[in-house]
Amino acid sequence: MAKPVSTKPRAVADFKTATDLLNVLPMTAEVKNGHLYVGGVDMVTLAREAGTALYVMDEETIATQLSDYIKWTRYHWKEVDVVYAGKAFLSRAMVQLVDAEGCCLDVSSGGELALALSAGFDPARIYVHGNNKTDEELNECLDAGVGRIVVDSFEELEQLSTMASERGIEQSILIRVTPGIEADTHDYIKTGAEDSKFGFGLNSGNAFRAVKRAAELPGIDFEGLHIHIGSQIYALQSFSAAIEVIVAFIAKIRDELGIETRLLDTGGGLGVAYGVPDEPATIKEYGKVVIDDIKEECEKHDLTVPRMAVEPGRSIVANSGITLYTVGVIKVIPDIRTYVSVDGGMSDNIRTSLYDAHYEALIANKADQPRTITATVAGKHCESGDIVVSDGPLQEVERGDILCVCATGAYAQSLSNNYNKQVRPGIIWVKDGTWRWVVYRETYEDLMRTDAVEGVCP
Amino acid sequence: MAKPVSTKPRAVADFKTATDLLNVLPMTAEVKNGHLYVGGVDMVTLAREAGTALYVMDEETIATQLSDYIKWTRYHWKEVDVVYAGKAFLSRAMVQLVDAEGCCLDVSSGGELALALSAGFDPARIYVHGNNKTDEELNECLDAGVGRIVVDSFEELEQLSTMASERGIEQSILIRVTPGIEADTHDYIKTGAEDSKFGFGLNSGNAFRAVKRAAELPGIDFEGLHIHIGSQIYALQSFSAAIEVIVAFIAKIRDELGIETRLLDTGGGLGVAYGVPDEPATIKEYGKVVIDDIKEECEKHDLTVPRMAVEPGRSIVANSGITLYTVGVIKVIPDIRTYVSVDGGMSDNIRTSLYDAHYEALIANKADQPRTITATVAGKHCESGDIVVSDGPLQEVERGDILCVCATGAYAQSLSNNYNKQVRPGIIWVKDGTWRWVVYRETYEDLMRTDAVEGVCP
Repeated sequence: MAKPVSTKPRAVADFKTATDLLNVLPMTAEVKNGHLYVGGVDMVTLAREAGTALYVMDEETIATQLSDYIKWTRYHWKEVDVVYAGKAFLSRAMVQLVDAEGCCLDVSSGGELALALSAGFDPARIYVHGNNKTDEELNECLDAGVGRIVVDSFEELEQLSTMASERGIEQSILIRVTPGIEADTHDYIKTGAEDSKFGFGLNSGNAFRAVKRAAELPGIDFEGLHIHIGSQIYALQSFSAAIEVIVAFIAKIRDELGIETRLLDTGGGLGVAYGVPDEPATIKEYGKVVIDDIKEECEKHDLTVPRMAVEPGRSIVANSGITLYTVGVIKVIPDIRTYVSVDGGMSDNIRTSLYDAHYEALIANKADQPRTITATVAGKHCESGDIVVSDGPLQEVERGDILCVCATGAYAQSLSNNYNKQVRPGIIWVKDGTWRWVVYRETYEDLMRTDAVEGVCP
Repeated sequence: MAKPVSTKPRAVADFKTATDLLNVLPMTAEVKNGHLYVGGVDMVTLAREAGTALYVMDEETIATQLSDYIKWTRYHWKEVDVVYAGKAFLSRAMVQLVDAEGCCLDVSSGGELALALSAGFDPARIYVHGNNKTDEELNECLDAGVGRIVVDSFEELEQLSTMASERGIEQSILIRVTPGIEADTHDYIKTGAEDSKFGFGLNSGNAFRAVKRAAELPGIDFEGLHIHIGSQIYALQSFSAAIEVIVAFIAKIRDELGIETRLLDTGGGLGVAYGVPDEPATIKEYGKVVIDDIKEECEKHDLTVPRMAVEPGRSIVANSGITLYTVGVIKVIPDIRTYVSVDGGMSDNIRTSLYDAHYEALIANKADQPRTITATVAGKHCESGDIVVSDGPLQEVERGDILCVCATGAYAQSLSNNYNKQVRPGIIWVKDGTWRWVVYRETYEDLMRTDAVEGVCP
């Protein structure tokens, strides 16, 4: 007899043979009558009602991750900004949830800024990133009155000084420092090394020169420093190593320039679980390591502990999301491979081809059955590289099944494209047994909206 | 004394030190007063007038490639359909040019079909591809009255038979065969092998069973076979090997089933030059090998030579296109690398990160100067993997220069995305000294169009 279970904490007992997927699914995931439920909503019914391909995100998971960051950083230090990195996933609903949870927002383009403003986000709580902000974007930032601009180059520093001076304002800035720390992660998302398009090298002396220059320039308020050592980081010691280096730099700035660093932004990078064996650090562990390390290093250098900021993106949304597809053609190629084709693919999730990313999949309408076969989940695009899951475990599958790919809440929709003129899926948020569209599915008309030649959409 | 030159044939002498780029640029490319011209239009003036990032395509190159395919295939055989593969690049202007040149069109989704129809393309000249066409898409095909559907699975065959029978029509189809030939190309675009999500395996006997079944089924007119052995193929012998196998199969179908194959579609795959050293076969060489081989193999088996079809995509548009960017931040990291950041990146060209693709770049306003430095052209996205050209030769470069990346006419715009809420560039076609938008640049409002939460775009 199964014990009665609530949706919080996770209903492990209900998963039966799918318990191995708990670490990659939204926190409200459960199995009822053989169906996967998220946020109290039956994913099978939802898929059939709303259509597929479909992104589904669990609002409670997102809210919990945001509030966990607030809680487990401010537990260790009174003044910490939790700055959600919008590039992982951004829509108006997301902006408003970030706001409601008391977090700040990191935007990295004029488009992200415009979206944030359109949703009513307070510009004073916006951090602006980018290795190559255009003059138009810098103007948009100043027009909006953004809180902080993370300056990435000498050219930007001078340009911003000119623009701010012309407006008679002092723009608060952070200097982005590349500390020369290599994070233990995928090459493509390794950003702390000296060989980077981002920031001012610490070892080259450019970071020091940038701070000195920032302090001299009119229109610029040097508030502090920013580092980001990479993404999808599992080893917390990577953060410790970077913090040791950057706090020593803060001491050097004080000693040699007499300048106070009032804010230290250590960027994002906490890894998430995409696969069953993945065991990333928790937000609690991350908060303790990062915040305590900063305090300790400051003490070592006899520095006043600055205001801090962290910039989580992936770890807020990745595990909140799943993608639902309807299974179409199944091809069993004897002794080679089984291909399960779905009604989406590299247009809605390019991470498998782009980063060789690993995902777990399950059949949402057979969620209580064991995953006994090995299958490759392929998309519908005219390209052999259009693979969502390579040779992963799956339940016995048939045409019409609802296939769920786990942990697609980050960098799937934000990298989505219209390859083969495939319409991009909509996004539904679920909560307490209800669901709502936060982004609508595109239509054929949307595909032709910017076509400059007149035509008649059939 | 330089001799006076016209824009046709290419003004090699004008290129001076940039002559090494002729093989990757549009055929009308030339250098005048130090500026790159395409289609008689100054790319530097155009970039500053129309804004960057910007895709530019040379209409004459596209038209010439299309007509060369017609010419050099029909030179060898009277009945050849040149079927442009829309996935490489599709817009209404492109559809209309394909039409004007007397070519057919290959679509691989409902979206591509809708776009083609919206531009007035004759559905009877449309070939429909896809490993996992949805029922909706099949219905749309039948509603439109498309010429040929390339059937990819038994499920699709049965479904199509039912749908066509219900309508009281006979749908002409091709059976897609995976011949087990591995093309000498990138893993991701190798599609002729047995291990493929596409088609019916020849060696497994599935292809034979599919033809047999197609001939039996009501509503289905078995017209012929389709193979596609991969993309960006340099070695023409790959085509010969596949043709030998498929024509033997046609003979087997005749001998064992008494069924005539009236159409043989050998797919696409002819490679193009992305880099200076690249020397792909010409369309003329391709036409001779493919068409003559089919004729010879048919003779060997005493077969009536069927109608033929070829499906070029990349080789029609790749070299017609360039992407223009404005140079922003330049970072020289001593002894490591020089990063030249541009106002675009992996949102408008993800092929470098996705396929490790190689591109050539030049400074359009210094086109007569030698490329003396080595630089990495990076985008403006918040990601280290956002690279357009890795360590390539470039002219001495400064902020505000117009940087041209060559050979971006295929699979750049079609894979473009809104990562970091970057608006996608527009596309301008040039011809005879004039230019026109064929796709407009997106606006911030376009980024929010499908957002389901109300807001006010600033």
